[in-house]
Amino acid sequence: MTASRRLIMGESRRPGFKSRPEHQTLSFVKDAHKPYISLTVLSESAVIMMDGTTRTVVSNYDKLMEKAKGIIVLESARSLMLWDMETKMPPKGITLRSEQLALLKQFEHRMCIDPEIGALLQEIQAQPGYEALTKLQKKNLSLLRKKYDEMTKLPEELVVETAKQRVIAYNTWKKAKVAKDFSLFEPELEKLVNLRRRAAEILMNAKGTATPYDALIDIFEPKMPADEIAKIFDELKKGLVAIVEKCRIAPKQPDVSILKRKVPIDAQREISNSLAKFIKYDVDSKEAGGRIDETEHPFTSGYYDDVRITTHYYENNFTSSMFSILHEAGHAIYDQNLNSEWMYQPIGEGCSYGFHESQSRFVENMIGRSLEFWVYYLPKLKELAGNTFSDVELDTFVRAINQVEPSKIRVEADEVTYCLHVIIRFEIERELIAGKIAVADLPKIWNQKYEDYLGINIENDSEGVMQDVHWAQGYFGYFPTYALGNIYSGQILVALEKDIPDWKGQIKKGSFHKVKQWLANNVHQHGKLYSPLDLLRKITGEEINVKHYLDYLNEKYAKLYGFNQRH
Amino acid sequence: MTASRRLIMGESRRPGFKSRPEHQTLSFVKDAHKPYISLTVLSESAVIMMDGTTRTVVSNYDKLMEKAKGIIVLESARSLMLWDMETKMPPKGITLRSEQLALLKQFEHRMCIDPEIGALLQEIQAQPGYEALTKLQKKNLSLLRKKYDEMTKLPEELVVETAKQRVIAYNTWKKAKVAKDFSLFEPELEKLVNLRRRAAEILMNAKGTATPYDALIDIFEPKMPADEIAKIFDELKKGLVAIVEKCRIAPKQPDVSILKRKVPIDAQREISNSLAKFIKYDVDSKEAGGRIDETEHPFTSGYYDDVRITTHYYENNFTSSMFSILHEAGHAIYDQNLNSEWMYQPIGEGCSYGFHESQSRFVENMIGRSLEFWVYYLPKLKELAGNTFSDVELDTFVRAINQVEPSKIRVEADEVTYCLHVIIRFEIERELIAGKIAVADLPKIWNQKYEDYLGINIENDSEGVMQDVHWAQGYFGYFPTYALGNIYSGQILVALEKDIPDWKGQIKKGSFHKVKQWLANNVHQHGKLYSPLDLLRKITGEEINVKHYLDYLNEKYAKLYGFNQRH
Repeated sequence: MTASRRLIMGESRRPGFKSRPEHQTLSFVKDAHKPYISLTVLSESAVIMMDGTTRTVVSNYDKLMEKAKGIIVLESARSLMLWDMETKMPPKGITLRSEQLALLKQFEHRMCIDPEIGALLQEIQAQPGYEALTKLQKKNLSLLRKKYDEMTKLPEELVVETAKQRVIAYNTWKKAKVAKDFSLFEPELEKLVNLRRRAAEILMNAKGTATPYDALIDIFEPKMPADEIAKIFDELKKGLVAIVEKCRIAPKQPDVSILKRKVPIDAQREISNSLAKFIKYDVDSKEAGGRIDETEHPFTSGYYDDVRITTHYYENNFTSSMFSILHEAGHAIYDQNLNSEWMYQPIGEGCSYGFHESQSRFVENMIGRSLEFWVYYLPKLKELAGNTFSDVELDTFVRAINQVEPSKIRVEADEVTYCLHVIIRFEIERELIAGKIAVADLPKIWNQKYEDYLGINIENDSEGVMQDVHWAQGYFGYFPTYALGNIYSGQILVALEKDIPDWKGQIKKGSFHKVKQWLANNVHQHGKLYSPLDLLRKITGEEINVKHYLDYLNEKYAKLYGFNQRH
Repeated sequence: MTASRRLIMGESRRPGFKSRPEHQTLSFVKDAHKPYISLTVLSESAVIMMDGTTRTVVSNYDKLMEKAKGIIVLESARSLMLWDMETKMPPKGITLRSEQLALLKQFEHRMCIDPEIGALLQEIQAQPGYEALTKLQKKNLSLLRKKYDEMTKLPEELVVETAKQRVIAYNTWKKAKVAKDFSLFEPELEKLVNLRRRAAEILMNAKGTATPYDALIDIFEPKMPADEIAKIFDELKKGLVAIVEKCRIAPKQPDVSILKRKVPIDAQREISNSLAKFIKYDVDSKEAGGRIDETEHPFTSGYYDDVRITTHYYENNFTSSMFSILHEAGHAIYDQNLNSEWMYQPIGEGCSYGFHESQSRFVENMIGRSLEFWVYYLPKLKELAGNTFSDVELDTFVRAINQVEPSKIRVEADEVTYCLHVIIRFEIERELIAGKIAVADLPKIWNQKYEDYLGINIENDSEGVMQDVHWAQGYFGYFPTYALGNIYSGQILVALEKDIPDWKGQIKKGSFHKVKQWLANNVHQHGKLYSPLDLLRKITGEEINVKHYLDYLNEKYAKLYGFNQRH
C-alpha cells in the first residue's frame, strides 16, 4: 500500500555499488593514506603512449574528477546528517542541525562553483586531445559541466537561505500537520515557494528551458519538459480512470478484512528482514551495507556501501511495512548495484529520479503484489506471523492486497489510483511555480481535484494538501518522477520478459536472483551514463510509451476483478 | 564498574546548555533565515555610545565570533559522523566514512588557519578599543588565538593524513583485538605514533612547552606539564597502593556473588532510563536533548541541545551498564548545562578533559556508588529487576559494588585501583612520545607495569595493551586527564559539602536537584572561561591537591572494609 518518498542528497540522487571483493576495499584503504586532495595522478593506462596534448587532457581530467569526488563525498556526509535528523536526532537538536546542514550546503555550493572547475572544463574541451577521452569520461565531464553551469548561476545567499528555510518549513509542516492547521504552515511554505521560484527563474535562463518549472523538473528528470509530461499524463489518466471504473463495477470484489488482522511489531520486523533478504538487500550480515530504521515516512538514503532504508510499523496494518520495505529495498539495491568502478564519479549514481522510482515500484508492485511472489511467500508469512493467517487462501490474499479503491493518501494508494494522486500534484505545482496559484489557495484547489479525479472528499488539510513532505522541503518538480517511474517500469517489464521468459516461475520458486541480475546489468550498472530517455531506448528499444504500463495493469486487474480487459 | 572513554570532537571537547525556553529557540530559528555567514552585525548593546576605535573592535570581534561559530558547527557535524560510525553505520560503510571524515577535517583545518583570523586578531589586540571588551570576550579571543596558533603550525597534509590514519588504525585495532594479535595492530599504530610525534614536535615549538608530550597534554588539559603531573601522580600512587593493601588484608571482605545475577537486557534498559532521569539527563521526553544507544565502549558525544551517550548491556553483569550510564550522564549534564548564551562561542564548552572527567566520576562514584544513593535506589532496582534482588540487603549490595580488587581492564576497575591503570598509561605514553620506547616493545612494558603496580599477570594483549581505544585513535596525552578528573572531584566534593552540608540527605531522599544545580552553577556554567587550575581555585579556594581525593577514599573504604583510616 505504500509508495513512499526517498530522502534526497541535495538535489541529485546518488546511488550504487557492486559487491566488492575484500582486496579492493583494502587497496582503497591504502589509497586513503594519501592526502585527500592529492596532487594530480596521471591515469596509468594512458601514460605510456600519449603526446603532449593528451597528457594535458588526462591531467586536467584527473584534476576535475578529484574535485567531483570532493563534492560527492560532502553530499554523502550531508545526506547522513539528514538521515540522522529523521531517525535518531533528539528533538531539541533541530536548531543545531539546521546550522550544520546550512554550513555543509554552503561548502558544497562553494565547491561546485569553484572557478577552477570552469577554467579546467573550458581548457579540456578546447584541446585536440579531448577526443582521446572515452565516452564515459566525456559523460563525467558533461555532468560536471551541467552542475557547474547550474550552480554558478545561483547566488550563495539564495542557496544558504533556501537550505535553512527547508528545515524551518519542514518542522513547521510537522507541527501544522499534527494541528491540522494549514494556516500555520502557509507563511513558511510561501517563503520557500518564493525562494524556489527565484531559483527556477535563474535556472531556466541557465538551462534554456521553456519555463521555470521545466528547470526544476530537469533537476530530477533531465530533459523532460512539463508539456511532454502533461501529454503523457493525460493518456495515463484516461487509461487509469477506465480501469478504476472497471474495478468499481466488477461483481468480483476483494475481501480486505484480513488486512486488518493484528500482527505484532516484532513479527513485522522479522518479516521486514526476510523481505530484505529475498530482494538481496543486505542489512543483517557482518559485511552488511545497509540497515532498516523506523520513521513516520519511509525513505532510502545513502551511497554505494552505506545505503539505509526506513519503514513504519502499525500493528493493525501489517501490509504498510511490508510494501514500504519492498519499495525502499527496490531503491536500495539500485544504489548498491551501481558500477563499483564509478564510485565518487558523476556517472556513479542512478540515472534519474524516475528511473529510481521505476525500480522501487517494480519491486513493490510487479514483484511484491504479484500472484507468483505470494505463491512462494504466503507460507513464509504464515510462519512469521504466528497463527494469524493460517486460514487465509492465496487467492483471497492476493486480491486483498491489490484492492483498487480511490483514497485520500497517496502513499497508501493502490497501484491503479496511485498515479492519479501524482498527476494532481503535478498539475498543481506546475501552476504554483508559474505563479498562477497562490499558496493560500492550495487547500481549495487540492480538495477540488480530489473530488474531480478520485471522487474523494477531503475533510482536513493534514490528509489533504499537507499529507506529503516534498513541498515542505522545497522539492517542486519531484512529484512527476513518481508517475514517470511507473511508466518506465511497464516498459522495462516487457524487456525483462523477452530476456527471461520464465521470470515469473523463478519468483514462484522463491528466487529473485536472476531478475535482480538482469536489473543490475540492464539498469543499475549503467548509472548516469545515459539520459533517462536514452537509457529507456537502450533497454527497451523504444521511446517513452504509456501503453505497456496500462497493458500490465489491465491484464493484472482483469484477472483479479474478473473483467474483460479488451473493453 | 565502568569508567569509560568519551567520543571526541576533533581534539577539543565541546559541551553545554541550559534548558532553553521555547521563545528563545524560536527567535534563534528566525535568525536562521539569514545567510549563514552574515554581514557583520554590531552588538546592539555597544552601538549607542562608542567611538570609532571601539566600533572597529566590536565589528572585528563579531567577525571573529562568526568564524569561530563556523568552526564549532563543523566540529559538531563531524562529531555526529563519528557517533554514527560507532553506533549505526553498516560495516561496509567504513571506507566511505573515512573519506567523509577526512574531508570535513580538512575543511575544519582550513577554517582554523584562515589568514583573516590571524589578521583580525592582530588588528583587534593592537587597538586601544580592545580594553573596552569584557573579560568573557577577551577569553573568547585568546581561545581562538590559541587554536589559530596551534593549527597554523600544522601542515594540512599532516592533518589530513592523521585523520585517515586514525580511522585505519582504529579499524585495525578492532580486528587485532578480536584476533588477540598485537602484531596486526603494530604497523598501523606505529604510523599513527609517528604522525602524532611529528605534530607534537611542531606544537611544542608553537606553544613553548618543555617537551613534545607536554604539547599533546595541553590539547586536553591546558597548562599542565607532564613533570607536574608525574609529581602529583606519585603522591596519588602511594596513597592508592596503601588503600589497596588495607582493603586486601581487611577481615571484612565483600560478597560479590550477587553481581553475577542475571538481569534481562530489557530490564537493564529500563534501569538506564530511570538512572538518566534521576541525574536529570533528558532522553525520553518530546523535548529531549539526548539519547542512549549501545556500543562496545560507552561514550558521550554532542553539543548543547544534542548530547548523546552510549552503554553496553551484559545479562550477567548488570552493574556494567548501570555505572557506565551514570558516568556518561555525568558528562552529558555538563554539556547540557553550559551557559546557553555561549553556544557557538569558544568559551561555550567544558573547561577541560580533566574537568569533564571530574563530573562523570563524581556522578558515577561519589553519587552512584554511595551508600546514600542506594538507600533510595535499591528498592527501585528491586522493582525494575523483578525478583532478582528481593533477598539482598543494602549493606551487602553497597559493599559488593565497591569491592576493591586489582584487575586487568581499566574500564572495569574499581574506584581505588582505577587511577593506577591510568598512571601506567601516562608513564608509558610519556616515554613513547619522547621516543624512549618503541611501539614493538609496548606489550612487554605494559605487562611488566601491571605486574609491578597491580600484581596482575597479563596473558594476552587484547586484555593488555590493546584494551583501550585511545591510542588506536591517536589520542596521546588524553589518559592523564582521567586521573586528574578524580583528583579534581575530591576537591570539588569538599566545596560542595561546605555549601550544601545536607547534600547526602538529599540523595538519600532521591533528589539530585540541589546537587545538580550546585554543579551547574559552580562548574558547568563557567564553560571554558577559566583554565582548569583557575577554575579549581575559584571553586575550592586552593591549588590542585591529591589529599582530598585520598581522604574521601580512605574514609569511604575504611567504613566499607572496616579498617582504621588513620593508619
